[in-house]
Amino acid sequence: MIVPHLIARKRDGGSLTPDEWSGVIAAYTRDQIPDYQMSALLMAAFLRGIDDVELEAIADAMLESGERLTWPEGGVYVDKHSTGGVGDKISLILAPLVASCGVAVPMMSGRSLGHTGGTLDKLEAIPGFRTALSLEEVREQISHIGCAMFGQTREIAPADRKLYALRDATGTVESIPLIAASIMSKKLAEGLTGLVLDVKWGSGAFLPEPERGMELARTMMALGARRGCPTVALLTAMDRPLGRAIGNALETEEAIMTLRGEGPSDVLEVTYALGVEMLVLAGISVGREDARRVLREALESGRALEAFRQVIEAQGGNPAIVDDPAALPQAAHQVVVRAEVPGIVQTVEPRTLGRAVVSMGGGRQHVDDAPDPSVGFTVSVQPGHRVTEGEPLATVWAADDAGAEDGRRAVRAAIRIGEEPIELAPLVSHRVTARGAANR
Amino acid sequence: MIVPHLIARKRDGGSLTPDEWSGVIAAYTRDQIPDYQMSALLMAAFLRGIDDVELEAIADAMLESGERLTWPEGGVYVDKHSTGGVGDKISLILAPLVASCGVAVPMMSGRSLGHTGGTLDKLEAIPGFRTALSLEEVREQISHIGCAMFGQTREIAPADRKLYALRDATGTVESIPLIAASIMSKKLAEGLTGLVLDVKWGSGAFLPEPERGMELARTMMALGARRGCPTVALLTAMDRPLGRAIGNALETEEAIMTLRGEGPSDVLEVTYALGVEMLVLAGISVGREDARRVLREALESGRALEAFRQVIEAQGGNPAIVDDPAALPQAAHQVVVRAEVPGIVQTVEPRTLGRAVVSMGGGRQHVDDAPDPSVGFTVSVQPGHRVTEGEPLATVWAADDAGAEDGRRAVRAAIRIGEEPIELAPLVSHRVTARGAANR
Repeated sequence: MIVPHLIARKRDGGSLTPDEWSGVIAAYTRDQIPDYQMSALLMAAFLRGIDDVELEAIADAMLESGERLTWPEGGVYVDKHSTGGVGDKISLILAPLVASCGVAVPMMSGRSLGHTGGTLDKLEAIPGFRTALSLEEVREQISHIGCAMFGQTREIAPADRKLYALRDATGTVESIPLIAASIMSKKLAEGLTGLVLDVKWGSGAFLPEPERGMELARTMMALGARRGCPTVALLTAMDRPLGRAIGNALETEEAIMTLRGEGPSDVLEVTYALGVEMLVLAGISVGREDARRVLREALESGRALEAFRQVIEAQGGNPAIVDDPAALPQAAHQVVVRAEVPGIVQTVEPRTLGRAVVSMGGGRQHVDDAPDPSVGFTVSVQPGHRVTEGEPLATVWAADDAGAEDGRRAVRAAIRIGEEPIELAPLVSHRVTARGAANR
Repeated sequence: MIVPHLIARKRDGGSLTPDEWSGVIAAYTRDQIPDYQMSALLMAAFLRGIDDVELEAIADAMLESGERLTWPEGGVYVDKHSTGGVGDKISLILAPLVASCGVAVPMMSGRSLGHTGGTLDKLEAIPGFRTALSLEEVREQISHIGCAMFGQTREIAPADRKLYALRDATGTVESIPLIAASIMSKKLAEGLTGLVLDVKWGSGAFLPEPERGMELARTMMALGARRGCPTVALLTAMDRPLGRAIGNALETEEAIMTLRGEGPSDVLEVTYALGVEMLVLAGISVGREDARRVLREALESGRALEAFRQVIEAQGGNPAIVDDPAALPQAAHQVVVRAEVPGIVQTVEPRTLGRAVVSMGGGRQHVDDAPDPSVGFTVSVQPGHRVTEGEPLATVWAADDAGAEDGRRAVRAAIRIGEEPIELAPLVSHRVTARGAANR
């Protein structure tokens, strides 16, 4: 295997064989191929494309670079993955909610990167909460309480971890096959019997165009089906933030409020839509209507909140926060930004607000940064809302005056007021299954 | 300057500004940008293309990364560069020949790489010959004897050296703009008043298609003209080896024989064609006929051979070899390979023979390899020659039995005999000047 020859073949539009891909990825993971050759190969693959046979080989090689969760025969193990957005705290609600309906949910999540948040950072806003579980701890916890929320361990898909860090530094992240292989290699390592994807589109998503989101969904679904993990995808809108809260502690608080039956309607809508798919995939519910009824009952009875309390307790967090979310870290400065003119809200630009959270210290400029959980925004309006002069648009939660000023500027830039009536796109816009896609 | 953003822009078909290119190249040369980012950027540039403004910035940045030779006002300093081939020993003849006509020739050359030979390795077949001169030594030697033959020093275009090594390992060598910038950054560092390019085409050349050779010639000429170095290019055939000898010592011997008036006609033809351009660029000759007359006189009088003797002596080599080329290293095994059938020689495949020299130990698999100067071939036939059964096709010069067997197999593969009459393409096929290209 002469690596420059493989690079040149890919560069010239050829394909690598499955054996070549698995050899390259295995050698790279063992530090036997240098970063500079792998980054050239990835850029060639990015620009020349990756065919289906190559994609399967890449995903397989990443999956097989590490360990996999195995489960007792006959159980159902379902997870959800979101491609990432601003204000997306659905995992914190959905995992305990679905687990409280009798489905095991081994939920492996990521950290915030760029303008998007990450479930692990939101969970770690809870004092004491530990997301670095070993696979053994995950197995143990699932067998006892049916749910665990944890980060990619060193044991899972180390090839993916190493490749993702390289792609992030070399402009090769936004490749649909590489994104699909990266996500699916981790999800398949969970030993799932079913997977639901929340593929975001819109200006706050990694892939803003719905067509590319659809392509990503299909690509991931094909990888799942091949490995015996039926996969369904919903395409959901990320042209505005999801819910009102943006920022780690604020979002965790909103997730708890939702589990207490007091969440915003858009958060509930996405939670139910994804939860329905999970219950149907798990075989818990015969139909979608039945599934929705089961979920509502679990939420309204308080069982879902109880499940979250158990998860927090099992993972070392302070379970009292489910009763008193105000015990979460709170930012010292709160600034209400108000409408300067009356009119109709034209945009609540999610990327602008997500980036501002980073600049206020609540995200990561580098992988090693520790985010301040307390900073962020609570947004009071959505596109299409009519506001009067002086009406609150959002509250900035900042650690200091400079952060407050950053946040204020971001709100002004993100929330534009005009005269045009605005019709919001449907929140859950498409459902994609192995049998095809449908508008919703 | 956020490097992943620059990579992404190039990846998406955009351009980097001249300041961005010079910043990236300067930082890379100082080890402030890692190899893996530079290789991704180079691959993106390879596949998306490099526009003229970018190319000038890249060549400038590589040139300015190091030192340049400066010369007393009013002198003429002319060099020749070949894009590389098999059996191409023209530099060894041309530099002393042109110098003996009164033109200063600071000739900076390279080493063999892949299937092609390198002038430095051929010179080093001469016992004692030292090619690692400092720029000060080059200046000194030029002022005394008008010719120096040396390698790229650490002082010249360090950015190019580092980038070339990276490209070689990452499948990004064969990019016309990157090749042009690499060559011209070094040539312009010689402080030339004129440059002649020998751009090879055919199966033994790096760029086999004449059209691509033409494009490379034009690209280099534009970079030369911009920096006040008038540049002329000849396109010459490398669909067969040049001359009879292939291998370092054998080629040096053939070069000396040519300087003694006993060279093969094709070697003489290319030498004169390039020498004419150099004398005209230098202003020594008013016309091409006159230039050819001057060159022939320098060769036939023995002045050119004398100039080579001076160069060898000045650079620590044993000058006696110009009188007795047999004193060059000789391989222990000589095997004559004969025609097995009568017929017409269809091919003498240069790449096959060049690769065999490498496998016989006479080239480099890695940059650090020390080639055995004694191994190689002397080829007795050209495509189109009629041979009888048992007639010698080539002699293999090998260090041991295994090498001899490698060489024998290579001769059988390279020299095919058939019935078709073969017409050789003209050796010097095109002349390209700032005013245009002409078939010759």
